[in-house]
Amino acid sequence: MRRKPSSLCLPLLAVLLTAAADPKTALPPNEIVAMAQPGDWVDIAPDDLLVMTLTPASKGKPRRIVIQLMPAPFSAGWVDNIRLLARAHWYDGIAVVRVQDNYVVQWGDPHGEDAKKAKPLPPGLKMMTERDYVYPRSLPVDARLGTLLRPRNDVSHFAGFTEGFSFEGDGTPDSVRNWPVHCYGMVGVGRNLSPDTGTGAELYTVIGHAPRQLDRNIALAGRIIEGMEHLASLPRGTGEIGFYKTPQERTPIRSIRLASDLPAAEQPHVQYLDTGSDFFMRYADARANRRDPFFITPAGGADICNIPVPIRRKP
Amino acid sequence: MRRKPSSLCLPLLAVLLTAAADPKTALPPNEIVAMAQPGDWVDIAPDDLLVMTLTPASKGKPRRIVIQLMPAPFSAGWVDNIRLLARAHWYDGIAVVRVQDNYVVQWGDPHGEDAKKAKPLPPGLKMMTERDYVYPRSLPVDARLGTLLRPRNDVSHFAGFTEGFSFEGDGTPDSVRNWPVHCYGMVGVGRNLSPDTGTGAELYTVIGHAPRQLDRNIALAGRIIEGMEHLASLPRGTGEIGFYKTPQERTPIRSIRLASDLPAAEQPHVQYLDTGSDFFMRYADARANRRDPFFITPAGGADICNIPVPIRRKP
Repeated sequence: MRRKPSSLCLPLLAVLLTAAADPKTALPPNEIVAMAQPGDWVDIAPDDLLVMTLTPASKGKPRRIVIQLMPAPFSAGWVDNIRLLARAHWYDGIAVVRVQDNYVVQWGDPHGEDAKKAKPLPPGLKMMTERDYVYPRSLPVDARLGTLLRPRNDVSHFAGFTEGFSFEGDGTPDSVRNWPVHCYGMVGVGRNLSPDTGTGAELYTVIGHAPRQLDRNIALAGRIIEGMEHLASLPRGTGEIGFYKTPQERTPIRSIRLASDLPAAEQPHVQYLDTGSDFFMRYADARANRRDPFFITPAGGADICNIPVPIRRKP
Repeated sequence: MRRKPSSLCLPLLAVLLTAAADPKTALPPNEIVAMAQPGDWVDIAPDDLLVMTLTPASKGKPRRIVIQLMPAPFSAGWVDNIRLLARAHWYDGIAVVRVQDNYVVQWGDPHGEDAKKAKPLPPGLKMMTERDYVYPRSLPVDARLGTLLRPRNDVSHFAGFTEGFSFEGDGTPDSVRNWPVHCYGMVGVGRNLSPDTGTGAELYTVIGHAPRQLDRNIALAGRIIEGMEHLASLPRGTGEIGFYKTPQERTPIRSIRLASDLPAAEQPHVQYLDTGSDFFMRYADARANRRDPFFITPAGGADICNIPVPIRRKP
């Protein structure tokens, strides 16, 4: 999770700024991202990547999902637990147990609620508390974002990006809280009723409109950066709140591994666009105000979940 | 699309208000909805319902989708076109041609872009313009919503519900514009580059985080109220922006019929919760501030797309 200094490429930026002013030549967000320079991309460390392999789809098609673990300062204890569980191969053989439309896909030990049949957890897992759902200090918010976001940043509410992840916050200069945001594809830690906060043995991802009511009420621990379609297109659950009624409906998980534990040839090399870079700001502006030819009326702002951080395979 | 006067049931409301104050007994949104009285529910007219039947799934399981057409004052010309196309059985035999993850599922004539092979459109379709994307007059906004929504309603920005659908607006008292909102499950009218605005022969629905950049740039014509899972769980497209590369990947549509054209026994009888009712406001408040036992920190507000209007089969 190292951040490289962003490379400011003036001639290209000049082209972009000119383009933005003219509706006939304004660029869509993905074309702005494509113009970013090598120095604008940040490598994701192999210790921050999980590779989740489902059983193959009906025609033997492999289903591989790559998850980026959340960087500091958020959720560090849960992320440590997830690394520990992955290194212990604890996740191997669990299953996708729940798919609730416009809400979440959830995976874990199907017998996790049954003390006699539950898979024993490895030693060394951290116990986190409700307090760990928020980071109680201020994080820098890029002033260039203030006018792009809805709701707009002001003294008591703010949102921004840190280490390639979006966050939201509230408070006063004396008492600030920040927390990660439940956008599409974010990965969180299932739990029972509070004060339980979950270990990381049961995880879920968002497959619908951002369920922001979960922010500060459940831990987020990462996001899916490849293979989201393998989870989002699973058949919806047949029982209450999307749990599958029968074991046959579940999708088995073959393994979840840290990329750093995979043979070198199997490790994914993935980068995110530096969220402090000029190209990211141009991209965010284009997401908030589409001016490329299909569009007639720029929106005038975007929800932070409508500005997903660009991800790519390292060229 | 008749609105009935809401029945105010004082004893139940008293229970609800008491419950909301106590975190141990506060009700989740669905339980508040379950307490609404018969008079709080509005029948959806059979002329406002479309029944879309896909070919059965792999094990012969039927796939039936119910769409509620958008009520006045929005998009009336496109809705008329869709009724005309359905009555002409024009949609029969078209297909789902595009599934883009976290964006849209789209259906239409797979040869629609090929003048020689395109299915001829029936006569009488209305030509709509970009101006029809907005309704240029004010709509009443319930003051009780003002504090629940994010962004909050103020003099230049507002959001609310009319005839059971959400809308957003901006302007001043002298120059107001309102428009429908691209929430999860909303159905819109595919088009090519402006000034084309689409006829209604090609439709899409939202299967991810609300793509609000499309508001005022493309027509919305309804929403999916049953069977959304049959579309949202389709395999994602293999080509550019989610189009399927081969015809075999498409899902054929057997028919799309107005409910009023179906035999009485096959007509769905569906209702929505009156968005002016007290129970709807309690529901909206509970969506914006979850106080039921799982939750620790109420969000303090909800995006309008996080307050989906409750729908049910008529008891």
